[in-house]
Amino acid sequence: MTSPAYDVVAIGNAIVDVLAQAEDAFITETGMTKGSMQLMFSPAEADALYAKMGPGIEASGGSAANTVAAIAALGGRSGFIGQVADDQLGEVFAHDIRAAGVTFTTAARAGEPTTARCLIFVTPDGQRTMNTFLRASQFLPASALDNEMIASGAILYLEGYLWDPEEPRAAMRKGIALAREAGRKVAFTLSDAFCISRHRADFRRLIDEGQLDILFANEAEILSLMETEDFEAAVSAVAGKIETLVVTRSEQGAIAIQGGRRYAVPAEPIDKVVDTTGAGDLFAAGFLAGQAQGRGAQDSLTMGAIAAAEVISHYGARPEADIAALVKARLG
Amino acid sequence: MTSPAYDVVAIGNAIVDVLAQAEDAFITETGMTKGSMQLMFSPAEADALYAKMGPGIEASGGSAANTVAAIAALGGRSGFIGQVADDQLGEVFAHDIRAAGVTFTTAARAGEPTTARCLIFVTPDGQRTMNTFLRASQFLPASALDNEMIASGAILYLEGYLWDPEEPRAAMRKGIALAREAGRKVAFTLSDAFCISRHRADFRRLIDEGQLDILFANEAEILSLMETEDFEAAVSAVAGKIETLVVTRSEQGAIAIQGGRRYAVPAEPIDKVVDTTGAGDLFAAGFLAGQAQGRGAQDSLTMGAIAAAEVISHYGARPEADIAALVKARLG
Repeated sequence: MTSPAYDVVAIGNAIVDVLAQAEDAFITETGMTKGSMQLMFSPAEADALYAKMGPGIEASGGSAANTVAAIAALGGRSGFIGQVADDQLGEVFAHDIRAAGVTFTTAARAGEPTTARCLIFVTPDGQRTMNTFLRASQFLPASALDNEMIASGAILYLEGYLWDPEEPRAAMRKGIALAREAGRKVAFTLSDAFCISRHRADFRRLIDEGQLDILFANEAEILSLMETEDFEAAVSAVAGKIETLVVTRSEQGAIAIQGGRRYAVPAEPIDKVVDTTGAGDLFAAGFLAGQAQGRGAQDSLTMGAIAAAEVISHYGARPEADIAALVKARLG
Repeated sequence: MTSPAYDVVAIGNAIVDVLAQAEDAFITETGMTKGSMQLMFSPAEADALYAKMGPGIEASGGSAANTVAAIAALGGRSGFIGQVADDQLGEVFAHDIRAAGVTFTTAARAGEPTTARCLIFVTPDGQRTMNTFLRASQFLPASALDNEMIASGAILYLEGYLWDPEEPRAAMRKGIALAREAGRKVAFTLSDAFCISRHRADFRRLIDEGQLDILFANEAEILSLMETEDFEAAVSAVAGKIETLVVTRSEQGAIAIQGGRRYAVPAEPIDKVVDTTGAGDLFAAGFLAGQAQGRGAQDSLTMGAIAAAEVISHYGARPEADIAALVKARLG
């Protein structure tokens, strides 16, 4: 096994976010579930929702893409695999992830459909409610995987969101096989409670079969995965089957269970939660970057909390401040 | 003369801004003049600069477009005329200005060139340095003017930036004629010192011929216009020929000379200047909205200062906070 060229290689949705403010009443009236991600399936549906949306800002997103962008910002070496179209938003996505220092080699897909967009409504409490129009992103074929990149990444990181469309699901299964064959670790984020309800059996099988080394979830997700309302029971059930389990709990901080030991970190105090988009993605970035630097689970959790706190203090899911400096100031 | 349906109708560049952080050294090394706007003329030039840019966020911009968007946010009735292409960034621009409450009826232009972009580098002091690739925006033809909209706007507002390309220049001359014929007022912003150096004779002729009722400038611009280093001399020379002159002076606030009387307002205190993009545009919006509400020059200046302070406290040139509420809290 050669020394890995990347700390983390991710396969994920390649999305440009459109963020706008919205009142809680708007979320209710349009039938959205606040805090969740729902998929849009037709251009007419996406256009109708966009027409109701206030003035927006666009920023590159995608869950795993946000994570690897932040890992690069923390000094880690990361790569990304995801499908954009050959259009203006695709150029924006490709530019931003490369400018963040991430290796991105997946070729843009010609013609329709267009690059994925996510319409994100941010309520006054900073909570984000997402409506994703996957378009080109759902056509990532297994043949587009950069096999060499996956084999040379210490960790392959996968997002549960990408389990929805068929082609990328097959690509991720192939990615897992490639990584395991190369003796690498596989990390997975459960992404969203609704997403789990669509793929619970698959996700549990991945865990039961020992395909995953590191699992990220939030409280709602781990409860949904194990179909229980007992947090400790869900954590125990999963922790026994995974080398490292990380569960974020919003303002209650996060826990990790690694090698049978349990670690906890409080949430970072911040002045004002502006937009929670990317909080989980950045927590995963901090934790994985910490592990890549050889830090223990406790310090890796702290790095996750620092990175998450930065990203919720402004609009958009990629870091704006120098998060590496923030970590250095705290942990040296 | 019928009662105006719009408080302000603007003709301006239809641009999507791409904003990224940059160090001062980058501005120097790339040969930019900090704080100015420079035009890019080839796709190769634009691509090369974009490749050097850090991760960005996209937000609708355009000087006069920012102004009318903020006028709508202040409760005014505004319209916009400007040229986008039939592409994704054109959709973003059209969506955002309409979502802001502005009437926008200019049809998108099919095919190449694409919608205008402005690459904006924001240095740690919050100053913005702009590189504009006008593309579709420079092809606004006089035939695209919404004559009825112009005739029914109490004020026609024009941006000096749009004087650069030939077709929109002709369109603006036609717009001025339409507005004057309908008995409306014409307001003009000088936009940028470099822009003035390219069009000084034209701009002075517009003033000398009495084509303009309201003129907006910053300190550098009015000095450039009158080719002097004596601020008071420049102000006196222009004020004698214009019903209302407004000059912004960054942290020294702003002055207005209206009907021979002079008014001044200090800059609003703000915690941190994040990004000065749109400061002048929002000052103009506040002043014009105040005038439309029948307020005097003093209160109109205060509205300008409040709107400008809001927009420099975050990235992007359109208001994020409820600026109408901020004005109401101060002025009732």
